[in-house]
Amino acid sequence: MGLTVQKFGGSSVADAERIMRAAGRAVKAKRAGNNVIVIVSARGDLTDELIDLAKQVSEDPPRREMDMLLSTGEQQSVALMAMAVHTLGEDAISFAGAQIGIVTDSFHTKAKIRNIDPTRIIEALDQGKIVIVAGFQGVDENFNITTLGRGGSDTTAVALASVLKADVCEIYTDVDGVYTADPRRVSDARKIARISYDEMLELAALGAQVMQARSIEFAKRYGVTIHVRSSFNDNEGTYIVREAPEMEDIVVSGVALSKNEAKVTIRAVPDKPGVAATIMGRFAASGVNVDMIVQNTSADGITDMSFTVDRSELPHARKVAQSLLADLGGTGVESAEDIAKLSIVGIGMRSHTGVAEKMFAALAAVDVNINMISTSEIKLSVIIDAKYADEALAAVHAAFELNKPPA
Amino acid sequence: MGLTVQKFGGSSVADAERIMRAAGRAVKAKRAGNNVIVIVSARGDLTDELIDLAKQVSEDPPRREMDMLLSTGEQQSVALMAMAVHTLGEDAISFAGAQIGIVTDSFHTKAKIRNIDPTRIIEALDQGKIVIVAGFQGVDENFNITTLGRGGSDTTAVALASVLKADVCEIYTDVDGVYTADPRRVSDARKIARISYDEMLELAALGAQVMQARSIEFAKRYGVTIHVRSSFNDNEGTYIVREAPEMEDIVVSGVALSKNEAKVTIRAVPDKPGVAATIMGRFAASGVNVDMIVQNTSADGITDMSFTVDRSELPHARKVAQSLLADLGGTGVESAEDIAKLSIVGIGMRSHTGVAEKMFAALAAVDVNINMISTSEIKLSVIIDAKYADEALAAVHAAFELNKPPA
Repeated sequence: MGLTVQKFGGSSVADAERIMRAAGRAVKAKRAGNNVIVIVSARGDLTDELIDLAKQVSEDPPRREMDMLLSTGEQQSVALMAMAVHTLGEDAISFAGAQIGIVTDSFHTKAKIRNIDPTRIIEALDQGKIVIVAGFQGVDENFNITTLGRGGSDTTAVALASVLKADVCEIYTDVDGVYTADPRRVSDARKIARISYDEMLELAALGAQVMQARSIEFAKRYGVTIHVRSSFNDNEGTYIVREAPEMEDIVVSGVALSKNEAKVTIRAVPDKPGVAATIMGRFAASGVNVDMIVQNTSADGITDMSFTVDRSELPHARKVAQSLLADLGGTGVESAEDIAKLSIVGIGMRSHTGVAEKMFAALAAVDVNINMISTSEIKLSVIIDAKYADEALAAVHAAFELNKPPA
Repeated sequence: MGLTVQKFGGSSVADAERIMRAAGRAVKAKRAGNNVIVIVSARGDLTDELIDLAKQVSEDPPRREMDMLLSTGEQQSVALMAMAVHTLGEDAISFAGAQIGIVTDSFHTKAKIRNIDPTRIIEALDQGKIVIVAGFQGVDENFNITTLGRGGSDTTAVALASVLKADVCEIYTDVDGVYTADPRRVSDARKIARISYDEMLELAALGAQVMQARSIEFAKRYGVTIHVRSSFNDNEGTYIVREAPEMEDIVVSGVALSKNEAKVTIRAVPDKPGVAATIMGRFAASGVNVDMIVQNTSADGITDMSFTVDRSELPHARKVAQSLLADLGGTGVESAEDIAKLSIVGIGMRSHTGVAEKMFAALAAVDVNINMISTSEIKLSVIIDAKYADEALAAVHAAFELNKPPA
């Protein structure tokens, strides 16, 4: 007998009708002869509503209490889902994280799973029940309720799929799968049938909203096959799988565009050893994540240092940069928000040459200037002016012929 | 250092403003030098909304899942209350029933508390924290979440007050205390300063909504002093206490009116031994609670049996009565809903004579006919036509001079 793990996000269980539909999928998998574990998120906007309520009584709510509050959203969903499965004629039982021993560390609002005790789930599966588990939550050693942070339900699903050796971990969402580019921006974007964990990790880090990076890391480490698919139709979605040799034949798997970046430049810094380390050390100590870094060619022993940060961190990053001026002797701090980051991702980049040239040529052909470049083994990102973003995305997508299925 | 238990009902924590006000009371008690435990119900109409949601996915939701769903209401309240206390500058920690070992039996939706482990509460109190506990809920031996039924938060409060030997268990509600009659019906109804457990039990059974009967039984058994008071002002409310000798001087403590009754009559039943037992046995077996019973004087060996049931159970009671006709040989079943039950309650009735006469005379003076009578040691109830209910209530309230403070 197979074991299927199904995870339904908030939009897939937003109301009674959608809960019934999701329950229908679980029942169908059960009647096809599988053991079924369902992981559920909080309904629709409930989490945001609860956060709003918390803000009405506290400007800075204690994180332990925030977890106590938010974990109720998933608990409601599992109870309703179990009821819906009963209505459809199968037996079901719901569990909060605490009830199945999802033990985490004590970092409230962003806890990490340490251990899962599958005894009770196995017992329920053996009794023929569909097991419904609250995503996003656990308990620490002292039975304080914890939550796993944004996208935590994906992590719960992958962790359970791993511990219980599921055949597949199905992630039901409101899109059909992972695309070669955001279909809202690129009309001929194509759904990707199979993608490697590493590529998916890069895409997630680049702002693809499909799955959270942490759950993909988890899946990679334990070799969990993920199937991202729509909760609104029966189409095959995208499988996220272990890298296979033939995958290298595909040079570029997808193109990602992010507009959440901002650029900070420190002008006229002395170009001497240790300066870059000082700057980056200060940012790291301040908790600001620096993404791309460019140091211009030195003239007269003076250089400009530019780097990008998450746009939400710009005010904080400017303050840190300003504080560095006095120490380093630069002449000023500038920043810009009208930038975009365009990236190509593909494990085939490792074995193919000329990928960067092809991307740069495509951008040059539509007169888009490149401000900054950064590369990793399977990714190439450029910073461009925001106003050219969509045009550049389309040009690069076309240059790599991503609208056509791979050979 | 004293220990105060405070319980806030749903209307007292319905929104952020009310939560802040309730938190303010806890903080005030803390700063007056007490250890403080707060028990909280679900916000306003949340429980009803969740029940409604459950009905949308299931006509007859499994009770275990119902408990899983409904218990989230109280959990949200405790988290928000703890946040509010923090905002006011005191330390607080919230607990779900499971976290402080409120162990119950497994009768979902109406579980009974078996044991409470106060260790974690005492630890938190010793650390100077205000302890916020979710009312209405516990866990059974297998960590399934259970709920205690209607008014269950009162029971949680009284149980904790008992286990931790609190000086007082304050029940905050939307009324000022317990009155000699419903103040919405009797304009000169007077707030009762002190009332015995037994009187309060009778009043609760008669439909006074202030507290659930089970929590008062609990308080009586363990001698917990209850103070019912308003969450909207600082007035002294009503103390529910152990009976004291001087209480017997008050003949009648209060008058209660209930319109939730219905009358069923089985016509022309043979008047022979065992018939009444057969009828009552059948009702008991069907789960219909019969309240008052009257058997008319027999004529020609034939009699009418009348009894009252809760109005919501009338359709079921009629069916049971109909099924009895065949067995007993009666001629028909009649029922009426236009009745009301008027009751006087007072432990002084035990030691004073003439109480019934005084009540009947008051009713006769306003031309109200009595259909049925039932008495207990400290209670006297009559069934009258519903249309005379308010007039009769006022007359009886006046006859016992309940508007005047006791001597």
